[in-house]
Amino acid sequence: MASPAYEKTPVNTVKRLGKERGNYDYKNVHSIVNSSPVVHVSFNPIAADDPFPAVLPMLGVTGSFTSQDADPATSEQDLYIHGYVGSRLMKQSSASGDDQGTPVTVAATLMDGLVLALTPNHHSCNYRSAVVFGYASLVTDEAEKLYALELITNNMIPNLWANCRVPPNKTEMTSTTILRVKISLASAKIRSGGPSEDRHDAKDEALRKRVWTGVVPSWTQWGEPIPAKATLVEEVPEHVESWRALANRDGRVGAYEAAVEKEK
Amino acid sequence: MASPAYEKTPVNTVKRLGKERGNYDYKNVHSIVNSSPVVHVSFNPIAADDPFPAVLPMLGVTGSFTSQDADPATSEQDLYIHGYVGSRLMKQSSASGDDQGTPVTVAATLMDGLVLALTPNHHSCNYRSAVVFGYASLVTDEAEKLYALELITNNMIPNLWANCRVPPNKTEMTSTTILRVKISLASAKIRSGGPSEDRHDAKDEALRKRVWTGVVPSWTQWGEPIPAKATLVEEVPEHVESWRALANRDGRVGAYEAAVEKEK
Repeated sequence: MASPAYEKTPVNTVKRLGKERGNYDYKNVHSIVNSSPVVHVSFNPIAADDPFPAVLPMLGVTGSFTSQDADPATSEQDLYIHGYVGSRLMKQSSASGDDQGTPVTVAATLMDGLVLALTPNHHSCNYRSAVVFGYASLVTDEAEKLYALELITNNMIPNLWANCRVPPNKTEMTSTTILRVKISLASAKIRSGGPSEDRHDAKDEALRKRVWTGVVPSWTQWGEPIPAKATLVEEVPEHVESWRALANRDGRVGAYEAAVEKEK
Repeated sequence: MASPAYEKTPVNTVKRLGKERGNYDYKNVHSIVNSSPVVHVSFNPIAADDPFPAVLPMLGVTGSFTSQDADPATSEQDLYIHGYVGSRLMKQSSASGDDQGTPVTVAATLMDGLVLALTPNHHSCNYRSAVVFGYASLVTDEAEKLYALELITNNMIPNLWANCRVPPNKTEMTSTTILRVKISLASAKIRSGGPSEDRHDAKDEALRKRVWTGVVPSWTQWGEPIPAKATLVEEVPEHVESWRALANRDGRVGAYEAAVEKEK
């Protein structure tokens, strides 16, 4: 059975190059977005004399308020985004009212390594990138906002929500802005493996003896936590330390797997 | 004397929140872009029925073909971008001809850590983010293309260019696409330090004994290189290993400095 996937249209079709692969599965798109510590949210310029798309760095996570137990790998999801919402995006999202929302494009890219080849043209990166196209609206329902806040918090570190002072009070809820993106289309692009080479260069033994080729794997490393001056808790708690150990291990293992994959 | 900086207009003005700081200096904007392994390039939709901005992950580096020795920290720069240029962006850039080019917004964000507070609303990230607004054109001049390719290659790893088979041959030059972005406006946004707290929570000793607060620093870690099956060079070369050691050290030191900065 085929995996549940986004429709492929001219807007989200991935152009493949070398060892890059396009992918439209919920599983890939959602997991790349949810693994990215930050996403870039682009929207169209508002002012008539402003030619440039606006871009904001924000936190993003997929979820479904109406099917909260659904697995993001196999089910339809919305994208909840949180962060400083520029007054311009805010105006668009509020103004949309009963409308379908503000068109946004959300991009997330995870680097898995540098790929060094015999020639500059064949240098590349191993990476996983997702682009999501959809319509953003302000979340106004109190229960949905709470759901999204908990989702975003626990996507930073599992169980972080339950280990803070919760629930947020009325003032905190009012001052928090969450946008829900109804996803129209999405795609992922993944590059893995060692370098590709020009056929002529690949046969050149003298060149292969002179220029080292291979992959330098990379991942996000989480260092020893630094307590705030004000904290009265003496030890870094278990939910932080166990997450950190796992994230560092998964990051490292994933980068090495991406480097060797399909090298024969 | 004030540092050379981009003009501040409604398009690029940074809204500040908590410990975030806006910055328009060449030094900050250029160094964030040049330190990012990948940038996201957004441009306006072309098709009349496509409401979504397009976004492509690409490699980017600042430079000046006409003042090649100029210091990016203090001088005007162009932004050279390289990667798979979608047919849509390509059409826009080629079509622009003598025109000023295709409006693009280029975003780069570097994560320096997670900031854990007493409440979900005060959780934050330490990060450095740059957004560059400008006009992109295809580089057609052979000498400028070569200059940009070398710049992009050496921005991955210093001296990488001289340690490959160079210069690229005619076919390679023809198949390579480089865009030059004439920068109109730009800004950087930087968050550092420990958590901010609600004044009421900060006085709550029981809460401060229950909820750990502080920063988990993060950086890009470069792992032990994996040689390609085809390489005949036995040791990972010095330009790769010395860069890797320095990048890992700078990443770690930078993340810890960002975590403690301004905590008193």
